Amino acid sequence: MSHLTPVNPSHGLVDVPGFRVGVTACDIRNKGNDRLDLTLLASDRPAAAAAVFTRNRFAAAPVLHGRRLLAGGRPVRAIVANSGNANACTGQEGMADTETMAAHTASALGCEDHEVFVCSTGRIGERLPMERIKAGIARAATGLSDAPEAGCKAADAILTSDTRRKVVTVRTQIGGRTVTVAGIAKGAGMIQPDMATMLAFIATDASIPAPDLQSFLTTAVGPTFNAVTVDGDTSTNDTVLLLANHMSGVTLESAADRAAFAEALLHVCDDLARKIVGDGEKITKVVDLRVEGAATQADAEKVARTIGNSLLVKSSWFGGDPNWGRLLDAAGYAGVDFDPDRVVLDYLPCEKGDPVPVFAKGQAIHANKPLWKALVAAPQFGIRLHLGGGEATFRLLASDLTDGYVNFNKSE
Amino acid sequence: MSHLTPVNPSHGLVDVPGFRVGVTACDIRNKGNDRLDLTLLASDRPAAAAAVFTRNRFAAAPVLHGRRLLAGGRPVRAIVANSGNANACTGQEGMADTETMAAHTASALGCEDHEVFVCSTGRIGERLPMERIKAGIARAATGLSDAPEAGCKAADAILTSDTRRKVVTVRTQIGGRTVTVAGIAKGAGMIQPDMATMLAFIATDASIPAPDLQSFLTTAVGPTFNAVTVDGDTSTNDTVLLLANHMSGVTLESAADRAAFAEALLHVCDDLARKIVGDGEKITKVVDLRVEGAATQADAEKVARTIGNSLLVKSSWFGGDPNWGRLLDAAGYAGVDFDPDRVVLDYLPCEKGDPVPVFAKGQAIHANKPLWKALVAAPQFGIRLHLGGGEATFRLLASDLTDGYVNFNKSE
Repeated sequence: MSHLTPVNPSHGLVDVPGFRVGVTACDIRNKGNDRLDLTLLASDRPAAAAAVFTRNRFAAAPVLHGRRLLAGGRPVRAIVANSGNANACTGQEGMADTETMAAHTASALGCEDHEVFVCSTGRIGERLPMERIKAGIARAATGLSDAPEAGCKAADAILTSDTRRKVVTVRTQIGGRTVTVAGIAKGAGMIQPDMATMLAFIATDASIPAPDLQSFLTTAVGPTFNAVTVDGDTSTNDTVLLLANHMSGVTLESAADRAAFAEALLHVCDDLARKIVGDGEKITKVVDLRVEGAATQADAEKVARTIGNSLLVKSSWFGGDPNWGRLLDAAGYAGVDFDPDRVVLDYLPCEKGDPVPVFAKGQAIHANKPLWKALVAAPQFGIRLHLGGGEATFRLLASDLTDGYVNFNKSE
Repeated sequence: MSHLTPVNPSHGLVDVPGFRVGVTACDIRNKGNDRLDLTLLASDRPAAAAAVFTRNRFAAAPVLHGRRLLAGGRPVRAIVANSGNANACTGQEGMADTETMAAHTASALGCEDHEVFVCSTGRIGERLPMERIKAGIARAATGLSDAPEAGCKAADAILTSDTRRKVVTVRTQIGGRTVTVAGIAKGAGMIQPDMATMLAFIATDASIPAPDLQSFLTTAVGPTFNAVTVDGDTSTNDTVLLLANHMSGVTLESAADRAAFAEALLHVCDDLARKIVGDGEKITKVVDLRVEGAATQADAEKVARTIGNSLLVKSSWFGGDPNWGRLLDAAGYAGVDFDPDRVVLDYLPCEKGDPVPVFAKGQAIHANKPLWKALVAAPQFGIRLHLGGGEATFRLLASDLTDGYVNFNKSE
């Protein structure tokens, strides 16, 4: 039985006891405006940390720095994050800038350099405006707060081309006591996480040792952040960071306790991942794509990603055109072996309603066209492709591709 | 020394002695118009045949039929091809339709069913209008001609969303005699050939046994048709067919003879492949992307395709924005191991002029930005990405992604 209680509205990380945030504007984009672009998350107590990072070979300086910190396995006190500049492909100077951000944060908070994670997101290949950032860190540290409006501002300050704040909070009962898990995220473009994704920060007041925390996070990230795509581009900066500050005093003593925490964390990750796809750059559709009947999960994932990243499929979703032919074509070149005559394709309504069979026994079920045409006109719908060859499945949350996306990304 | 002479203007397949074409309109698209959509290519003599087909698991009925024919290894007399309907995902009925097309063509030409290849391209998942096609085959057979205008019409009749006719003819000297190689192709959308591509028909009057012919074709297709991408979508119908009718009486007796024929065939394949990318759906740029310094050719290809199919990279090419950051990001998630600090990126002018260094030693060479900005504003330019890890290379011809492509493909 689930003890999960969503907290609405969520104010992000400040919903977890013992965490405070500071937010400020450093004009990191060099636009001369006062858009919020620097966030400090501080834990009143040393917190256990878990993280997953991008597998991109051009991993940005803060990612390389974060991996080192994580490998140390020591408690953490803070995260400092900026938007507007990814500090990626910036060489030794970029790494020095990341280290400077950690050092300034540590000195402002009175902790050690190695207790501070650094995250950056935004444009690739340019140096950070370090003087403004150093001053910003000092301001943010002075203004640390656990007020609801501060929590919301922190969630806003990490956004780039996102149009909506992404926050979620849940509470669960473990051993008769309350544990809170809350998270914030940014997404929008360059979204096909591999291993981790974009920026997401999650906090909890549970008392969980770092190795356990890492195992919980890795498990939760697979079917959530790692199962979404907007444009198939995996960023240089993808990072999910989870801090557990032990504030609740709640430890996980039994399998039931572990299951309750895992459920809460999965809920938070799933909610943030969905919000990232739903706010993908200029998208108009979210498609819940389930590939079933594959020999292995890797096969199912390959087929799902090939469909979910096909330009022709995504363009047809944008047009509200139920183009099952392009979808099967994409499945056919995914590099996975299956028998086309055993493939079954259904379109699924988003909420209630029956699946609509589209293709089976090697042919389209043309009589159902009016039904599936109506179904795919909705802003959200599902697709189930059964390959007829095994028991493995994969579920990918994908978006359409719009002329707006192309025009938005013509230049930076 | 090369003996290659391009023939300008090319009239396509009729430039080769002993081949004639018949072209007609069957309203295969059910639009009630008289757009040419059925082409018959007849060889006066039995011709040796070679072919490469799509590897898509949903290979269309004519592809399955063509593979059977090719496996038989017998001489061929004709190709019948229609545009407007791919006869893909049409099950047993679709296969019966393909067989009927071959049988009607054979009976109109007075040859055997197994001497006729069938090719279809167009919409997936609908039955062909067989009565109109049967009548069209009879008309086309009656009107067979080797006149230049017939050759051009044949090249037009296989097009779908293409905007330009794709024809090429070359002559070469082998053993003191002239051999002609000519080809026609259609491309436009769903273009990332795997093994073969779209439709391309090539004819020669050289006298080459089928197994040798296949080996020549397979070699030529690798760096040409199989090294282009418009949208990363591999079609259900990709087919390259090469017929050699022995009409010139020229056989390949020496290594020099073989080299001369291989050169001519490579020229024809390369020319058609370039025309396919240059006429990709709504594209505005053609980018010659060279990945060098990889451990294996497979690695180099993986990196090139990941870059050439990245939505963010392609959108930035459309905008004429020299977005090297997205390009490196794509290289970084290609799943290939390399050291980012050894990567060197140059932009190359299309014709004369020096390469512009963009990125080296882990950082951008910002001082060169005006140079590379000017360079990428051209409709064609080159990119050379050296991974610093080996000797293997791959060259991919890619296009940009435009808002026009998305809107064009919103519905069929």
